[in-house]
Amino acid sequence: MITIERRNDGVALITLDRPAARNALSLALLEALSEALRECEEARCVVLAANGPAFSAGHDLRELTAARGEADGGRAFFARTMALCSRVMQQVVNHPVPVIAAVEGIATAAGCQLVASCDLAVATPASKFCTPGVDIALFCSTPAVAVARAIPRKAAMEMLLTGRMVGAEEARSLGLVNRVAEDARGAALELAAQIAARSAVTIRMGKRGFIEQSGLPLAEAYDAASAVMVDNMMAADAEEGIGAFLGKRAPHWQDR
Amino acid sequence: MITIERRNDGVALITLDRPAARNALSLALLEALSEALRECEEARCVVLAANGPAFSAGHDLRELTAARGEADGGRAFFARTMALCSRVMQQVVNHPVPVIAAVEGIATAAGCQLVASCDLAVATPASKFCTPGVDIALFCSTPAVAVARAIPRKAAMEMLLTGRMVGAEEARSLGLVNRVAEDARGAALELAAQIAARSAVTIRMGKRGFIEQSGLPLAEAYDAASAVMVDNMMAADAEEGIGAFLGKRAPHWQDR
Amino acid sequence: MITIERRNDGVALITLDRPAARNALSLALLEALSEALRECEEARCVVLAANGPAFSAGHDLRELTAARGEADGGRAFFARTMALCSRVMQQVVNHPVPVIAAVEGIATAAGCQLVASCDLAVATPASKFCTPGVDIALFCSTPAVAVARAIPRKAAMEMLLTGRMVGAEEARSLGLVNRVAEDARGAALELAAQIAARSAVTIRMGKRGFIEQSGLPLAEAYDAASAVMVDNMMAADAEEGIGAFLGKRAPHWQDR
Repeated sequence: MITIERRNDGVALITLDRPAARNALSLALLEALSEALRECEEARCVVLAANGPAFSAGHDLRELTAARGEADGGRAFFARTMALCSRVMQQVVNHPVPVIAAVEGIATAAGCQLVASCDLAVATPASKFCTPGVDIALFCSTPAVAVARAIPRKAAMEMLLTGRMVGAEEARSLGLVNRVAEDARGAALELAAQIAARSAVTIRMGKRGFIEQSGLPLAEAYDAASAVMVDNMMAADAEEGIGAFLGKRAPHWQDR
Repeated sequence: MITIERRNDGVALITLDRPAARNALSLALLEALSEALRECEEARCVVLAANGPAFSAGHDLRELTAARGEADGGRAFFARTMALCSRVMQQVVNHPVPVIAAVEGIATAAGCQLVASCDLAVATPASKFCTPGVDIALFCSTPAVAVARAIPRKAAMEMLLTGRMVGAEEARSLGLVNRVAEDARGAALELAAQIAARSAVTIRMGKRGFIEQSGLPLAEAYDAASAVMVDNMMAADAEEGIGAFLGKRAPHWQDR
Repeated sequence: MITIERRNDGVALITLDRPAARNALSLALLEALSEALRECEEARCVVLAANGPAFSAGHDLRELTAARGEADGGRAFFARTMALCSRVMQQVVNHPVPVIAAVEGIATAAGCQLVASCDLAVATPASKFCTPGVDIALFCSTPAVAVARAIPRKAAMEMLLTGRMVGAEEARSLGLVNRVAEDARGAALELAAQIAARSAVTIRMGKRGFIEQSGLPLAEAYDAASAVMVDNMMAADAEEGIGAFLGKRAPHWQDR
């Protein structure tokens, strides 16, 4: 259902592998993804890819529908699913290392949310993105949380209210993906390799600091970020990195 | 001063009809717009258009100036005007159904704010947008609230500090409008028709949920949006919509 | 180290003049910049330029490194530097008049942060922007505060995680700069002259109001901005500006 490939450069490649179901985010797949993300907390960078024509089609509608037979009409199951899904999305956002989406197909609804939640995203030219919940009378309210934090407000509203498919180039210009490449998985792995070649302690501190300051009022954001900078300066790698730069030599990271 | 056309598809077309005054937002026009928005709360979608060469030129400067003769120099009248205007703008943002601006001319100052406040906007290629308060020594401070939430910060600052006219294509690339079309009113009505064809309860829940999560910290936003998703799943239309999708048939909305 | 040119039109041109050190933000340069900004609080608009091939290369790494010899390994010095730098950046953001960056070279790390912190920015076609702290194991955590508030989230993350150089046109499309011009300093001064020709009290009220509403929930933002609008209406210049507009004559500002 999910595979993890630990590469020599420290990059962990997590691949959703439920292609026949278009990588629909069933409870089981969400739990497997959550577990995979946890297992990759020691990696230097994570790439999130998917096998098959769809990156992910979002929630597993068959599974949700099956729960309607329960005594409460499925409410408890729906609540459990949404809570788990929201937790996994936040696990991506708050993951200790950068998470890069490699999108090689269609990412819809919670699948689009997953892309929006990643720190970076690379897509193939044929990739498409949409939040089409309105077509089935299930508004993409949780995907909206991630999408509205990635792209301009009116663009998010249009995706949500119309369900319109957004192509890769438009997604790039909106800020939903960073790059469009024929071999999106290869390009994402290369981007990850660049990040993995940096001091791990620095990347971790930096990402955590970014999340921390995000959304704070300016003065508080600067207080938080300044504290991170001072801690970062005291790390052995910063001494090495700055020393190497001033000495015009290549640095050797100790990752601390 | 304002007309309301209730269309067969459930779309309400509100048209500002004070063309000789360039649809300046006098107290009376603001009150009429507020009332029109309230009357259209049962519509499936609202389109906001305007007759004449200007979508709206913003506040009614003659009316504001007339109030200078009052004992307090107009302060109470200005406060009343700004409070009402701000209330109307928030009425648009918080309207129970999506509000789409159809801009067929120039939208300046509070007129530009009105466009920025709508969920979606369509403009003709010749439409123009600006916040030129600096030209008359009345900084567009309230328009700034809406504009700064729609477009990038430095772009908003440039509009506000220079009063520069922004053309339709630039407005689109900034995120101030969604689409540019020769027949902007027709295109807005078509967009509204698409939205009106969806389950009304879903569109309402979705828009309300979007507003609710907007600006919340991520964890709180997900809690709020997850609750909306669960309620949405329990609605009859979601059962119908998902069932129709899985059964490969067209859905029939009950709007509940 | 810093020059101030007070121009006839009320524009103050502050020029970083430490070209051999690529205008690195040493404690002394930061203090000089802070003092220059304070001295220019009575100007009508400020342009911030820099001599030499680099607008600013960010922190002074030699100075930071020298502090490692202190008893605490430099921690107190680093904290002092970051606090001062963050204070100067906020001084730009909160400066009583608009501050326009004129970027004629490379702006990296805290240099890029300085551009992001300005209200407006003009760059030459050859200008470049990056936050390359990851190359020296010092993540650009404080620059992130400014950059993340100027450009879309994933674009900011990419700059921070990869250190990639962003060209002037890309910076413009991201929202990091407003305009690209061969003579960026000239264009910035012209933009400043336009702003300086407006009522000073209006520009000051407007900028302060913009900062105040920024980040507030919508209802609070409108309350704050409405109060600014009312005060602005009571200013002599607004009466003059509106009167001149209605009377189709040129206004004469009294700056109050």
